[in-house]
Amino acid sequence: MSTDRRTLLQAAAALPLVTAAGTIASSQQAVAQAPKAAVTLASAAPAKDVTRTLAHYLVTAKYDDLPAEVRKEGVRTLLNWVGVAIGGSHHQTVDIAVAALTPFSGPAQASLFGRRERFDIMNAAFLNGVSSHIFDYDDTHLKTIIHPAGPVASAIIALSEMQPVSGKEFLNALILGVETECRIGNAVYPNHYDVGWHITGTAGVFGSAAAVGKLLNLNEQQMVWALGLAASQPVGLRESFGSMNKSFNPGRAASSGIFAAMLASKNFTSSDGMIEAKRGWANTISTKQDYNEILGDLGKRYEAALNTYKPFACGIVMHPAIDAAIQLRNENKLTADLVDHIDLKVHPLVLELTGKKTPREGLEGKFSIYHAVAVALVEGAGGEKQFSDRAVTDPTIVALRGKVVPVITPGIDPAQVDMTIVLKDGRQLNRRIEHAIGSVEKPMTDKQLETKFSDLAEGIIPAPAIRRVMDACWNVENLPSAAEIAKMSVST
Amino acid sequence: MSTDRRTLLQAAAALPLVTAAGTIASSQQAVAQAPKAAVTLASAAPAKDVTRTLAHYLVTAKYDDLPAEVRKEGVRTLLNWVGVAIGGSHHQTVDIAVAALTPFSGPAQASLFGRRERFDIMNAAFLNGVSSHIFDYDDTHLKTIIHPAGPVASAIIALSEMQPVSGKEFLNALILGVETECRIGNAVYPNHYDVGWHITGTAGVFGSAAAVGKLLNLNEQQMVWALGLAASQPVGLRESFGSMNKSFNPGRAASSGIFAAMLASKNFTSSDGMIEAKRGWANTISTKQDYNEILGDLGKRYEAALNTYKPFACGIVMHPAIDAAIQLRNENKLTADLVDHIDLKVHPLVLELTGKKTPREGLEGKFSIYHAVAVALVEGAGGEKQFSDRAVTDPTIVALRGKVVPVITPGIDPAQVDMTIVLKDGRQLNRRIEHAIGSVEKPMTDKQLETKFSDLAEGIIPAPAIRRVMDACWNVENLPSAAEIAKMSVST
Repeated sequence: MSTDRRTLLQAAAALPLVTAAGTIASSQQAVAQAPKAAVTLASAAPAKDVTRTLAHYLVTAKYDDLPAEVRKEGVRTLLNWVGVAIGGSHHQTVDIAVAALTPFSGPAQASLFGRRERFDIMNAAFLNGVSSHIFDYDDTHLKTIIHPAGPVASAIIALSEMQPVSGKEFLNALILGVETECRIGNAVYPNHYDVGWHITGTAGVFGSAAAVGKLLNLNEQQMVWALGLAASQPVGLRESFGSMNKSFNPGRAASSGIFAAMLASKNFTSSDGMIEAKRGWANTISTKQDYNEILGDLGKRYEAALNTYKPFACGIVMHPAIDAAIQLRNENKLTADLVDHIDLKVHPLVLELTGKKTPREGLEGKFSIYHAVAVALVEGAGGEKQFSDRAVTDPTIVALRGKVVPVITPGIDPAQVDMTIVLKDGRQLNRRIEHAIGSVEKPMTDKQLETKFSDLAEGIIPAPAIRRVMDACWNVENLPSAAEIAKMSVST
Repeated sequence: MSTDRRTLLQAAAALPLVTAAGTIASSQQAVAQAPKAAVTLASAAPAKDVTRTLAHYLVTAKYDDLPAEVRKEGVRTLLNWVGVAIGGSHHQTVDIAVAALTPFSGPAQASLFGRRERFDIMNAAFLNGVSSHIFDYDDTHLKTIIHPAGPVASAIIALSEMQPVSGKEFLNALILGVETECRIGNAVYPNHYDVGWHITGTAGVFGSAAAVGKLLNLNEQQMVWALGLAASQPVGLRESFGSMNKSFNPGRAASSGIFAAMLASKNFTSSDGMIEAKRGWANTISTKQDYNEILGDLGKRYEAALNTYKPFACGIVMHPAIDAAIQLRNENKLTADLVDHIDLKVHPLVLELTGKKTPREGLEGKFSIYHAVAVALVEGAGGEKQFSDRAVTDPTIVALRGKVVPVITPGIDPAQVDMTIVLKDGRQLNRRIEHAIGSVEKPMTDKQLETKFSDLAEGIIPAPAIRRVMDACWNVENLPSAAEIAKMSVST
């Protein structure tokens, strides 16, 4: 990948720094406004053999072809996903789904992360996919706000417990699945998302089918059919956000992708051009279709390398402010009693999406910039614990949130914030954030990913297991069997 | 239901007499062109509480509320569906799906029609749904060309083998499920279909969820969630027509509807306005939304009473010609050797959709008006046997199809045909069809449904069982357990 192109892609990827709950600045708009060299990216490819060309790529792509930085990002994608899947595993949403599906499960083929039950691989993939999205804390492909790992990793880790899958095969399939869903997402974003589809579920089912199909060694025609059966099962509407149905979507994308690939592996047919044909997926589900996004530079440009991970368990729109608060706190050893008030220059979306002044429970705290800044300043973090009922009702934090003064300010974009903490002693501490931690420009470090993982897994799996699972993820390329990761991630 | 309204609805229902493979004349266009009294039907209802009002209706509707003619049509819907489900059960499509899903099935809860395997209810519903659509010979709600029974009956007959369901409860749920999917289909048809959705799968999942939810005794809020989870899983694109993926769609609608209802029954939540909200189903999936179609006259007007059954195993566009050929043959004791040629005045869609002059195999015969007329004249029927490889390669039929001369004729609508058989002795036999057998105006008789059923089931289940199953269907309202129908429909 040329440096120019990467810079461009990263710039485009960084723009829509907005929570999944709101309107998103289009990366395609960004590309359209970019210098001339970028224009080829947005031009329309002819709608011919899109599904087949993608299928050909998928069945021929090899682990050894993957650039080192792409493999590295795939490993980080895996580790982050395992952490959030364990972290969400005892939420009521998962308890309910386990109870509902237990009577229908097939053989106990696959593990549930963070739990003890075992299900057939389709139901296990569904349940782990649900679990991994519950805190809205999973990974994000910023150009499309697809959460890529849920649909793909949930599917193939389950399959790995049913048939031998080496760590290298697993990582290759994970990256190909993520690549598939993000490229297909790019082709229809933003129109497809804007109209109401939850793109993680609609594109995700392709990712699952592609990755599972790869591990099933489908031939090209079978892969065409798997993608066609995936196209027939889009999952998720944005209207469901705020309910359990949101987490349902990546889970169902995972299990429906397996369903598609398993049928295709026995030669259950679909049509050949299900992505691009006149009455195929892209034309039916979106008013925008850019097939260059699917086929351009396959095997050279990797969307999977653009994956990002949330350092904070809330919508991305609040991340710059949390980042600023933690930095100023740590550098100045701040405590709540020192603070007179906090001035915050923000983009309008911050108040539109997270303007709740008096959240009463943990979930509401995720939609309150007031709470987010206060808790970050008091606790120096923005993890799931900071958006618990406990945190939201903590008297110190409640008092401090009343001193947070966000002001919509021209010239501040959604990726930015400008914070001034005015102390009781008259001092003013300022921090301007251009790119928050967790963005493409300022990715979470491996160490930070480990801290996030440990916080999520603590109390769910034993402490020694936490270390072992993280080591297994970092070392996935050398594992004889990817299933080891699932087996050591269950509760005892 | 007032007579005026019924007449209007039936007129509207009859118009789009076209195969599911092609463009359809809009029943809404018909309503728009109808006299003033009809206009209220097409006016937009406010998008408020649509999902909840529908859910309230579903959870409160009682068997005793059903008018007799609605119950009667429900019974005919059931009998026809059982016949096609048995008839398709040994097609390669089902064999493949059974092989693919066997490793993942849960407990052997439910039967496959016409087969011996047993699957968990979700997989059984999928497989029976596939089976029932394979010959494109199932029922049709002509206003939307939804095939209503597949998604609904497949789901609830499976559930009936898992929990006690009386025949009355079963029939009530079947009718409510059909009512739900057809009303939701009406709300978005034709725009939704025209853009590329296979409406049987997209609306069908609501039908399945509603019917299963009814039998699970969901409360109103749970039914709202079931419909919301159904909205999150639309199935099927028209591009898949001609492949196994087409039959996949009603099957997957059936199993995904169970999935939705089972989760909702344990209080897995969705949002409250998933059908009508700004980023809900109807706005996301269609450029037309007419909520009056969903809520208008609930419990008074019954779309389920407008269901029709195909007398011929091919697209509806060829039915008038087949009907004319069979009538003239029977009345005049015609044989192929007497015929010089056959003039056929048709609507342009007939040649657009079924213009294949030299079909080489059974399936292609379904897209050949030449073959359809010839085989109907030779064999006096248009069943699945008349669209077999055997029929399509029969020398007498092949010779006769070369003598069929369709001519596009102004003034002939898709429901009509004008046939003149010119005999070698110079006689000319004419028949004009205004409404073919199987239309709302000229429904198949119970006797004709039995003949169709027997032809489909022959050789798959034992002859005495065929009679027993048909009697059980006619008598469903008096069965202590609807599961009896499934149990006696398996092969031995």
